[in-house]
Amino acid sequence: MGAPDKGARRSGSTRRQFLLGGTVAGVGAAAAVGIDLALTTPSGTTAAAPSTPLNGSEIVPFHGIHQAGIDTDAQAHGTFVALDLRDEVDRDGLRRLMRILTDDAERLTQGRGALADSEPELALTPARLTVTFAFGPGFVARAAGTAPAWLQPLPAFAVDRLQDEFSHGDLLIQVAADDPLTVAHATRMLLKDARSFTTVRWTQQGFRRAYGSVAPGTTMRNLFGQVDGTSNPKPGTTEFDTVVWAGEGWLTGGTGMVVRRIHMNLDKWDKLDRSGREQSVGRTLSNGAPLTGTQEHDEPDFEAKTSVGFPVIPEFSHMRRARPDDTTQRIFRRAYNYDERPAGSDVSDSGLVFVSFQADVDAQFTPIQRRLDDLDLLNEWTTPIGSAVFAVPPGCAEGGYIGETLLA
Amino acid sequence: MGAPDKGARRSGSTRRQFLLGGTVAGVGAAAAVGIDLALTTPSGTTAAAPSTPLNGSEIVPFHGIHQAGIDTDAQAHGTFVALDLRDEVDRDGLRRLMRILTDDAERLTQGRGALADSEPELALTPARLTVTFAFGPGFVARAAGTAPAWLQPLPAFAVDRLQDEFSHGDLLIQVAADDPLTVAHATRMLLKDARSFTTVRWTQQGFRRAYGSVAPGTTMRNLFGQVDGTSNPKPGTTEFDTVVWAGEGWLTGGTGMVVRRIHMNLDKWDKLDRSGREQSVGRTLSNGAPLTGTQEHDEPDFEAKTSVGFPVIPEFSHMRRARPDDTTQRIFRRAYNYDERPAGSDVSDSGLVFVSFQADVDAQFTPIQRRLDDLDLLNEWTTPIGSAVFAVPPGCAEGGYIGETLLA
Repeated sequence: MGAPDKGARRSGSTRRQFLLGGTVAGVGAAAAVGIDLALTTPSGTTAAAPSTPLNGSEIVPFHGIHQAGIDTDAQAHGTFVALDLRDEVDRDGLRRLMRILTDDAERLTQGRGALADSEPELALTPARLTVTFAFGPGFVARAAGTAPAWLQPLPAFAVDRLQDEFSHGDLLIQVAADDPLTVAHATRMLLKDARSFTTVRWTQQGFRRAYGSVAPGTTMRNLFGQVDGTSNPKPGTTEFDTVVWAGEGWLTGGTGMVVRRIHMNLDKWDKLDRSGREQSVGRTLSNGAPLTGTQEHDEPDFEAKTSVGFPVIPEFSHMRRARPDDTTQRIFRRAYNYDERPAGSDVSDSGLVFVSFQADVDAQFTPIQRRLDDLDLLNEWTTPIGSAVFAVPPGCAEGGYIGETLLA
Repeated sequence: MGAPDKGARRSGSTRRQFLLGGTVAGVGAAAAVGIDLALTTPSGTTAAAPSTPLNGSEIVPFHGIHQAGIDTDAQAHGTFVALDLRDEVDRDGLRRLMRILTDDAERLTQGRGALADSEPELALTPARLTVTFAFGPGFVARAAGTAPAWLQPLPAFAVDRLQDEFSHGDLLIQVAADDPLTVAHATRMLLKDARSFTTVRWTQQGFRRAYGSVAPGTTMRNLFGQVDGTSNPKPGTTEFDTVVWAGEGWLTGGTGMVVRRIHMNLDKWDKLDRSGREQSVGRTLSNGAPLTGTQEHDEPDFEAKTSVGFPVIPEFSHMRRARPDDTTQRIFRRAYNYDERPAGSDVSDSGLVFVSFQADVDAQFTPIQRRLDDLDLLNEWTTPIGSAVFAVPPGCAEGGYIGETLLA
């Protein structure tokens, strides 16, 4: 079968046509374009190259003290897959698994196909792909490691209506990029390699604004139209480092991760007027400013009263309940919207894949959630239907693998 | 409740901060930035404005002879919603429905909120949003209009495993943009207004490469990694006009639309080697060139034989089966990939929302599908699980509404 006599000719010009066709992949491929042009154009100029680099070719480094995908500016698309370990996988098996997955992540995030990639062409557009691994209690137990005290299911909250199909798991893989096809392909390659070690427990997919759709640094909006994540610590600051990175044992340079699926009842929300919506959060809808301010990042004035003596930022507002007096109760949020094909006669199935990173889940996340559980007007329109806690191990250097501080 | 004394101050600076914050929406908003800066900066320069326009601000005109969303370069995200008319909706009701939906589409596509938009801020990033309406047999019957002969379910094909939940419908709305949040919001606003006239029959969501991820004009790839849509007629050519636009009665300037959900068995596809994959389609995986050529758009040579006498492009290949000898059998494809949260223990739920436009479905689409049904190696890995046919009415001028040629 096939056309062996045409093979050489085909693969020769194929490569150039392919690269000039636009799927230029990162540094490696960009260099290849240069070489290619030097070989084929008399002047060796790069006039034929695109004048602005495609954002599909942007690469996030894989190696480092911390894993990528935490302090990385959130990409447009995120898929979260929770896996359960098969019974027969022992500590050696965990090590093999994490070496294989690390190799996949290293290649895919740098715009190369995975080993034995079945569709290597789909890997050539990394679009800031990051792959982040996190361990559930079952993984750490199987590794005979010391689990941080907070690595367990969150306490039960009155608002929760948790479904097992969106909760818990032994190993979480967060796959995020600015291109949905890149996310789909990377997820599939990782799952293929994880298959003999694990079964899929749940998958959640989410999105934010497309890359380049709004100015960099714009706080995301959720499907309620709310500006979401204003008070996040900024990556690169001491505050961020203090909030996020853990400093003890095998988790040094890692962090704690909470993933909760929050269903948002958009139909019910529709019945609320604009003022009621702003009251429920304590921020304006137009730009997310606190009701006592004019700009998104203005400090709220919780003492301010209306002319008739009520607090301008109501007691029951989400912002007041979420914001601690105790400044150690800070978290870093990195949420994604979801809007899925509704089942049956439902008009929508929408909400938030809430994701937060914090060094100590018990000390930082749980008190906030407890206050929100007690009294938060937003509870009227939102229902947590999934919940999981993971320990995110640190990054690794070239030649190393994610999880080596626990498994080596 | 509220802070009336702070209202004026807030809304005044809110607008500027919001616009400069990046969600600049199209021509109107861009002009507003200019005015705003002129009012607030001493020099009146636009130095604070972003240096390159955000692709979120790109607008596709709504009015015209044809509806947008057909010859529009396919956007990154597409949602397809099929609605069934409620029993009590009569011809007058259809007219009211289409006037309302046209008004929504007109506003949303131009970067403005719908009337009584509950989250107008989400409408300010049109990102090339288009909304395209298409009528099923039930809609045309209710309108007491003359249906084209092809406006009926496709004949049964042996490969089909159709599910009612992905098939048929009275009114289809195609919502497409480069930003997934824009698509989610526009879809929701349209469904809110359609609710008293219709029920949701099915929803399908799909994606292609992100805007700016690959060079403009790059043929899309599906989740098999195949280049998909190479032989499409190019919008703006006589060929495209002949293939796509209908010329009779109320459908003049409109077209026929086929939407089929094609499940792709990625796990089974994985077992096929690269050469087998290329044989099954008749094209190379690297750049989509026919197996007898070197470039994607080379004409295939169906007579070429291998050194041992077999056709280079096999008889059973998708390309050979899909390509007609009869050149009137042409269609324009505008497909989207889907990759959904898998149910139960499945690893993936992936495939293609196949979408084609053609003036006459019976004469152009059905013969191709019949040949593919008879013999197409790709049938081994793909299964049609949904199917629907719609008549797409022409566009309208300002003050008009989509469907007026049928309903006026």
